[in-house]
Amino acid sequence: MWGAIEHLGRDGRTGGYLRDAWSPADLELREWFRQEAARRGLDLREDRNGNLWAWRGDPSRRPGVVTGSHLDSVRQGGAFDGPLGIVSAFAALDLLDARGFAPDRPLGIACFTDEEGARFGVPCTGSRLLTGVLDPDRARGLTDDDGSRLADVLRRAGRDPGALGRDDETLGHVGAFVELHVEQGRGLVHAGAPVGVASAIWPHGRWRFDFRGRADHAGTTRLEDRDDPMLPFARTVLRARESARRRGVVATFGRLRVSPGSANAIPGLVSAWLDARGGDAAAVRALVAELAESSGAEVGEESWTPAVDFDAALRDRLASAAGAVVAAARSAGRRPSAGHGPEDGSAPEPPAGPVPVLPTGAGHDAGILAAAGVPSAMVFVRNPTGISHSPEEHAEASDCHLGVAALAATLEELCRS
Amino acid sequence: MWGAIEHLGRDGRTGGYLRDAWSPADLELREWFRQEAARRGLDLREDRNGNLWAWRGDPSRRPGVVTGSHLDSVRQGGAFDGPLGIVSAFAALDLLDARGFAPDRPLGIACFTDEEGARFGVPCTGSRLLTGVLDPDRARGLTDDDGSRLADVLRRAGRDPGALGRDDETLGHVGAFVELHVEQGRGLVHAGAPVGVASAIWPHGRWRFDFRGRADHAGTTRLEDRDDPMLPFARTVLRARESARRRGVVATFGRLRVSPGSANAIPGLVSAWLDARGGDAAAVRALVAELAESSGAEVGEESWTPAVDFDAALRDRLASAAGAVVAAARSAGRRPSAGHGPEDGSAPEPPAGPVPVLPTGAGHDAGILAAAGVPSAMVFVRNPTGISHSPEEHAEASDCHLGVAALAATLEELCRS
Repeated sequence: MWGAIEHLGRDGRTGGYLRDAWSPADLELREWFRQEAARRGLDLREDRNGNLWAWRGDPSRRPGVVTGSHLDSVRQGGAFDGPLGIVSAFAALDLLDARGFAPDRPLGIACFTDEEGARFGVPCTGSRLLTGVLDPDRARGLTDDDGSRLADVLRRAGRDPGALGRDDETLGHVGAFVELHVEQGRGLVHAGAPVGVASAIWPHGRWRFDFRGRADHAGTTRLEDRDDPMLPFARTVLRARESARRRGVVATFGRLRVSPGSANAIPGLVSAWLDARGGDAAAVRALVAELAESSGAEVGEESWTPAVDFDAALRDRLASAAGAVVAAARSAGRRPSAGHGPEDGSAPEPPAGPVPVLPTGAGHDAGILAAAGVPSAMVFVRNPTGISHSPEEHAEASDCHLGVAALAATLEELCRS
Repeated sequence: MWGAIEHLGRDGRTGGYLRDAWSPADLELREWFRQEAARRGLDLREDRNGNLWAWRGDPSRRPGVVTGSHLDSVRQGGAFDGPLGIVSAFAALDLLDARGFAPDRPLGIACFTDEEGARFGVPCTGSRLLTGVLDPDRARGLTDDDGSRLADVLRRAGRDPGALGRDDETLGHVGAFVELHVEQGRGLVHAGAPVGVASAIWPHGRWRFDFRGRADHAGTTRLEDRDDPMLPFARTVLRARESARRRGVVATFGRLRVSPGSANAIPGLVSAWLDARGGDAAAVRALVAELAESSGAEVGEESWTPAVDFDAALRDRLASAAGAVVAAARSAGRRPSAGHGPEDGSAPEPPAGPVPVLPTGAGHDAGILAAAGVPSAMVFVRNPTGISHSPEEHAEASDCHLGVAALAATLEELCRS
């Protein structure tokens, strides 16, 4: 399946992906999803918020078991963040079909819209709208870098922006949700394990800082006559790092808009997006308050997601099922890909029993659903470098196969209950 | 004439202009120039580098007197920087025609291409190519923010990029060049004068700083594992201001490209453009060397223009001609627009004799031609706020009329010699 999508939205110069929500590349990826669903005889539905659902069985009669992820990417992102969860969902279904498994419950594959928020600034737009934590009026008014409103972008894509909003009917179809994702750190590398399970998602948020000054000529305006917003922005970048270190959280300015943005013009406005996360919500809040106070910028909160603890029972079942798959693979002599252990090269032997259970600093649609009361869980697949949101993001095929097998075992068990 | 172009390339939200070279707005402005030339029976030529020349008389028989400026803008720029010089050129010709003036020498109006360099990063591209100080291979390879090469942009606009380069034939047509421009500071406000003349252009240059790091996930990458190029960039912004103050020059980071540019990704690359200028070339050079050394960035020089002293004889004739126009206007009781003097509101009486002669920190095509040995000069029109490269840039109509009259008087005198 990778072959059909690996070129879509790829930047030929960098190898990175540009899969903004509702871009031509995203629309092609959605079409690919439809075709994969049709090939397997699944019933495809697009909900009012643009999320895709491919069902075997009718979830309106009994809530089903759902797996899936997203197809959009950050800008210049890697191939795995999102698509690995979708491809693995179809592969797990194929594995179950090959075994002749007949589910007692409806089984669904979900593709959530605009998980990264690369274009409109708000991550997990599709699942946030679905669960009602993102106000549809606010969503419709979000603008991209070209000034296009999401409402207009949806209309041009043939969707009805008036239909956005909490969708209890669709949400009621989801009895449980399991998302497979490439790990976005080196926790599994350090544990010497090919797959793991999420315990919790850190509280995290995104804030827009607008530094206002006065646009002017870069050559003729004396230093003392300037009001250049690039200077307070620079001071805030340095202070954010220092404050994050002090408070034990992480803080990043990764997106920036400078207006007018000409080399020979002093900026009139620097807009910068702060991403901040940590194990302790109060520490994250304190960092943002400190920066808002010291920067002099106008600060707007674009998103805030409290800590999410995944369903404990589901998490433990998933960890046991994954552990059994890893143990079976090892005893079959197909020891999961070695060589991705700590720097000294000696990967510790994977532990017997359940796979590692880890917290994560990354937000996911599974976290949004969990916060809305849907029993949810996540499987992580080892990432040798830990690098993510970059073309260097990677997962070995053998680890991906173990992830699919663990996902299939979990779905099988959930569909029997 | 303003009415026909004031809407072209204007951003409806900000009132600022977006007139990138070879953009649809720029192509419309060029077409407007052709029509104004045709209406006056001028002979229109486009040279190999995309500059437009509207001639009365044949400059291949005897070098002519040329006036003009440019039509492109910085992003979110004002209405006057560039177009005022073109509109005033046509208006001065109309004034001479109304007086029945018959020039002894060919008289031309020039429109230089891509003076601001907003799109491809190199200012005065048209005049630099014409005079041979910009290598045509380098020009062809310049890319805009979308990754389009100038060569391809020219081809799409129906031009031949292979023809770019030094053009002695066209340059030989220009016996003298006078450019009228809105002032980009408050020198004339402080002098209480509606118009002035340029003495010199400061040495100035533009450098690209590439700060390289490692793109990574903003939520899952520990602070100690990060290589975030936004931090050295921020330190360099602050150091540039401090160094500029210490050295008595100006330095600005007004254009920035952050890759991947997603709020939830640590940047892998921050590219920032430094604009630096000052009365003393060595001080500007020392600032750039200091920042290149301390920043750790890869630094490339995109342009460098040594100090330009305008032709002294031409400058003095222009100052006297302008002074006579101002004096005549004053004695006719049409005292040039008051109320733009120093803050206390008491505009000093304009001095008798020549108008003020001022240096400028801004680069201009007139400076490029002067450096190439063409006798050149500039007339400045008062800018009440001094703000430039911004929608707030302004000049009063009465001051503009005096500028046109001064320009017409100078052209008349030059055409008689």
